[in-house]
Amino acid sequence: MPERVRVALVGAGRIGQRHAATLASAIPRAELAVIADLHGSSAETLAGKVRCDRWTDDPVAVLADPAIDAVVIASSTDSHAPLIVAAAGAGKQIFCEKPIALDLEATDRALEAVERAGVHLQMGFQRRFDKAYHQAKALIDAGTLGRIEAIRDTMRDPSPAPRAYLETSGGLYRDMTIHNFDCVRWMMGEEVTELFAMGSALVSPLFQELDDIDTSVISLRFANDGLGVIDNSRRSGFGYDVRTEVFGSEGAIMIGYSRDTPMLRLDTNGVHSDHIHWFLERFDQAYIDELRVFVDGIVDGTPPPVDGNDARAAMALAYAAEASRRENAPVSPARFARA
Amino acid sequence: MPERVRVALVGAGRIGQRHAATLASAIPRAELAVIADLHGSSAETLAGKVRCDRWTDDPVAVLADPAIDAVVIASSTDSHAPLIVAAAGAGKQIFCEKPIALDLEATDRALEAVERAGVHLQMGFQRRFDKAYHQAKALIDAGTLGRIEAIRDTMRDPSPAPRAYLETSGGLYRDMTIHNFDCVRWMMGEEVTELFAMGSALVSPLFQELDDIDTSVISLRFANDGLGVIDNSRRSGFGYDVRTEVFGSEGAIMIGYSRDTPMLRLDTNGVHSDHIHWFLERFDQAYIDELRVFVDGIVDGTPPPVDGNDARAAMALAYAAEASRRENAPVSPARFARA
Amino acid sequence: MPERVRVALVGAGRIGQRHAATLASAIPRAELAVIADLHGSSAETLAGKVRCDRWTDDPVAVLADPAIDAVVIASSTDSHAPLIVAAAGAGKQIFCEKPIALDLEATDRALEAVERAGVHLQMGFQRRFDKAYHQAKALIDAGTLGRIEAIRDTMRDPSPAPRAYLETSGGLYRDMTIHNFDCVRWMMGEEVTELFAMGSALVSPLFQELDDIDTSVISLRFANDGLGVIDNSRRSGFGYDVRTEVFGSEGAIMIGYSRDTPMLRLDTNGVHSDHIHWFLERFDQAYIDELRVFVDGIVDGTPPPVDGNDARAAMALAYAAEASRRENAPVSPARFARA
Amino acid sequence: MPERVRVALVGAGRIGQRHAATLASAIPRAELAVIADLHGSSAETLAGKVRCDRWTDDPVAVLADPAIDAVVIASSTDSHAPLIVAAAGAGKQIFCEKPIALDLEATDRALEAVERAGVHLQMGFQRRFDKAYHQAKALIDAGTLGRIEAIRDTMRDPSPAPRAYLETSGGLYRDMTIHNFDCVRWMMGEEVTELFAMGSALVSPLFQELDDIDTSVISLRFANDGLGVIDNSRRSGFGYDVRTEVFGSEGAIMIGYSRDTPMLRLDTNGVHSDHIHWFLERFDQAYIDELRVFVDGIVDGTPPPVDGNDARAAMALAYAAEASRRENAPVSPARFARA
Repeated sequence: MPERVRVALVGAGRIGQRHAATLASAIPRAELAVIADLHGSSAETLAGKVRCDRWTDDPVAVLADPAIDAVVIASSTDSHAPLIVAAAGAGKQIFCEKPIALDLEATDRALEAVERAGVHLQMGFQRRFDKAYHQAKALIDAGTLGRIEAIRDTMRDPSPAPRAYLETSGGLYRDMTIHNFDCVRWMMGEEVTELFAMGSALVSPLFQELDDIDTSVISLRFANDGLGVIDNSRRSGFGYDVRTEVFGSEGAIMIGYSRDTPMLRLDTNGVHSDHIHWFLERFDQAYIDELRVFVDGIVDGTPPPVDGNDARAAMALAYAAEASRRENAPVSPARFARA
Repeated sequence: MPERVRVALVGAGRIGQRHAATLASAIPRAELAVIADLHGSSAETLAGKVRCDRWTDDPVAVLADPAIDAVVIASSTDSHAPLIVAAAGAGKQIFCEKPIALDLEATDRALEAVERAGVHLQMGFQRRFDKAYHQAKALIDAGTLGRIEAIRDTMRDPSPAPRAYLETSGGLYRDMTIHNFDCVRWMMGEEVTELFAMGSALVSPLFQELDDIDTSVISLRFANDGLGVIDNSRRSGFGYDVRTEVFGSEGAIMIGYSRDTPMLRLDTNGVHSDHIHWFLERFDQAYIDELRVFVDGIVDGTPPPVDGNDARAAMALAYAAEASRRENAPVSPARFARA
Repeated sequence: MPERVRVALVGAGRIGQRHAATLASAIPRAELAVIADLHGSSAETLAGKVRCDRWTDDPVAVLADPAIDAVVIASSTDSHAPLIVAAAGAGKQIFCEKPIALDLEATDRALEAVERAGVHLQMGFQRRFDKAYHQAKALIDAGTLGRIEAIRDTMRDPSPAPRAYLETSGGLYRDMTIHNFDCVRWMMGEEVTELFAMGSALVSPLFQELDDIDTSVISLRFANDGLGVIDNSRRSGFGYDVRTEVFGSEGAIMIGYSRDTPMLRLDTNGVHSDHIHWFLERFDQAYIDELRVFVDGIVDGTPPPVDGNDARAAMALAYAAEASRRENAPVSPARFARA
Repeated sequence: MPERVRVALVGAGRIGQRHAATLASAIPRAELAVIADLHGSSAETLAGKVRCDRWTDDPVAVLADPAIDAVVIASSTDSHAPLIVAAAGAGKQIFCEKPIALDLEATDRALEAVERAGVHLQMGFQRRFDKAYHQAKALIDAGTLGRIEAIRDTMRDPSPAPRAYLETSGGLYRDMTIHNFDCVRWMMGEEVTELFAMGSALVSPLFQELDDIDTSVISLRFANDGLGVIDNSRRSGFGYDVRTEVFGSEGAIMIGYSRDTPMLRLDTNGVHSDHIHWFLERFDQAYIDELRVFVDGIVDGTPPPVDGNDARAAMALAYAAEASRRENAPVSPARFARA
């Protein structure tokens, strides 16, 4: 490995721009070598902004380039699996935004390619790198909470994404709840053995039209008989709502974020503060650290802390939730295990 | 009605003592006329403590006394239904601790007696009189939150009740979750149309021995397609945990209570505060106001804000939760509707 | 001493009403024997409300009554010193609202009478009995904060008292800051050796008219060279503001109170909560406990935790603050020491 | 002006490293052209870290370079004034860490050079660019708080700086309180007309040895008769403590920061959270935005929001505080006005 990992970024959209800024300046061990986007002009604009010398509209060509050590995949979801297969085939280390694919079959094919190639595949579940979640997990692993018995995991977007996004999102469970599925597996340190999902379309007629849901609660049982709940909404009515509570025999942890600015305003109506509004603000630090860990892992030869198997397990839970809702019955995720 | 309602208190245990203190001094329109307890000495001791002139070991005789206008039933659960029937037969106004009975049959017989007699039956769901819950409900009813779409309701005791209590408690759902069932019906302003319950016995071997559970999550669907979750534990690991969150199209409400004393302690390890430890402290104000409202209702002729039908509906939800857990399937509470 | 202390309450105004309710019901070792007020009708009304059998318009006669063990003085400030002198002369135990008198001469005469008679004189500095302040002091005394180095003490009323009250209040320092003076002496466990006071009349023209101030900051030096600040306003713009911070070599304590109801409301404008509005609510528990401690002290023969000497010391600090403002110079409170 | 401002950074120490990272990557309109430090190796190391092509051990030569548009001065305090004079003479735009100089004479000479040259001199009072302070000031200016009447401003370091730093720091008022002096002038929108300062050396014998103080409270009067308090300590006992409260006729603002990570830990001892520990973390966003505003001001031709006159005014307040402490009397800062 060279001292500095030469990274190709594929995808110059919202999250690609975020990663470009990080790779360009915040990670001394990384060099942003090239930005690729099928829309060449997007790649060019972003390259100018972060002072990257090279850009291209041909992501696949980039993957064949021997001057590239690693690839960060932040392009549209349907391109993830083919890019992973190509990158693995070329022996590149891989960071990929969730999900690998919207279906388990394509996911499994990508995992096989990665396994065959023996490369890293780190998944962009950014919560795992958030300082609060990271510390919570460390306390849990250290036994501070005693035996872990229950978890409550909440996620609400401030308002629904645009129709175009929702149409190809894969639906609430594969697109949004997937973050919660990864979170509860990780925090509990146990696999889900059964879940029951209820959903409704309340937020906008669009969701009914798309045969999707916008509001959901899911009950979960874990292998240790611990229990959990996940609740989601595509619209919060106030801001970005991500909170997690873990309960153990010796205590509990509550992770939440509400105040954006450390300022209170007081008047005769009471006390007022603002609320964090967007996931890019909430997870600002995590988006940097996930790439730092990825690059460190390449240089130091340590495996990624969240990999393709985690992404697959979360997607299997999404499948199980969909089946539970369809069948109005509890479902075991084992039904969707990898062959 | 006399200017001052003459109240008989039946039951001199923990909650009876609380009500005695309230009736003796905090409610000008009420007069604590007599304290009755099968253990005469308990009645006597309590009467001395709150300076009540009269006590007896014969609750039933009290109910026949024409000098009594109203009765507050705070005796053991198995006596609630018979005392309600007797009190209703004697035309007394009734305040009763939850539940009316541990089974729906006895509950329905008591309700019939109350209906026949045309007397008030106010149930001791104290959360309804808590300032925070009361204000939340007012904001919801005023439309401040827009359309109500979801609710999260949590309740954890600091530690399990003693074995003797648990043996006759009726189990987690009839004894503890019953408060959450009443709360979610009230807050949502909608009936539950379906629920799914998961339970585990994790806290102590005692619960398995009693064929009971100590940890539970319940998913709920309401008539308006709104969704809810209730989670419970018989032991929190930290203190008394009662929190409720209601989400609407225009905003949300979060009711919680953690700090008992308005004091922070700071050191190099961080910031530390205490946590409220007991429901009698958390609901101190509510335990007074529920009796004030009861007495006001008698004098002013206004119906109780939470009555026997609410208690019955909450118990039907407990039945549905038990059935759901037994059958590992979603259950409609309609199955347990009053004949 | 009889098992139950027979207490006479003098004064049926706002704070007298509060004490009457407490004495009538919340303190088993006390019996509210009589209510005295120069306005007989006020005494009569209050007696009816708290079911006290006896009332009178002659406070002095009450003090001579051998059936009375103790007196709670809650009448107007100008009557405090004469009543203390009379009560002490009659050998009664005394609880008195602050201050003893608005001038040090009358204060000293009252203290002499108390000392001669050897009776208790407990002063109504209710903060000392507030759970948070009480615990903070215990932590300080236990050495948890290490060496105590600084204190910040804030007090703001929601809005100015009426003109009639202000006219005879003795001004900001003798009427309001006196609470802070007592608090900082107690918390620091040290006497003030020098202070510097700045004041302004900003809130209302009334204060200028009365040659009074409504806004003030005072710097303090303590005997151990620790430093402090007290800031006051007759109007907060939001609610009742009482907060204290104590800083030591090993940590700090922050006592504050803002949220009245444990409820947050969230919308697109942010997060909103209410604010406690009135000192009677903020110190609800303290107003009960100060009388309980007074009564316990009588029965158990333990001295009051805050006595006439504390009241005198706080008044001397008020004198020093006035002198400092007049002379625009730092002043040592020793100048106003008891002869 | 070129599209991209070519910036020379002078000083590769702690704060210089912070600014280098910002200039290298976070400000698209700026180009970090060269890093200068008398210790050439420090400049070289930093240049490598942030991938800046050029470094030098001759800051003065840099100032003469026509390829440089602006200079960020982050070197040791004694070099600030000479560098400002040189930079102004060469027509460079200037950003300088506080203070301009530890004495008013050198400060005034630097200001004259800046005025003669007609260049920008923006001072590194980073609080002014903190989101919370910025929003608070906007609310104050918009009249949301009504008439501004009082301010409380607190600053405590987690622990004293090393002896070497303290020896040349200029003492508590010129080194630390200077931030508070700038803050209260800015927030109140009024000049201080009188102040009274009390100080003690309590934290460490070192401060007595250096004839310095480590603990201080200062009372302030503003031109509108509003009042203020500033309290400082060189050691907090818990973490970095920066809080400001502004009180107006219609409400108040409280700016504070305590929790670093949005995580609570609960156990039987209560509720625990961490505390922010370092000013570089607390003001992370402000350190970026102050340079962004500096660069924007150069390109857009808008004057800096905090300039040399603000720095001078704050230093005059430090002089006044020292005089007040020396004379044990209130002092008017007018005594130290610019000739």
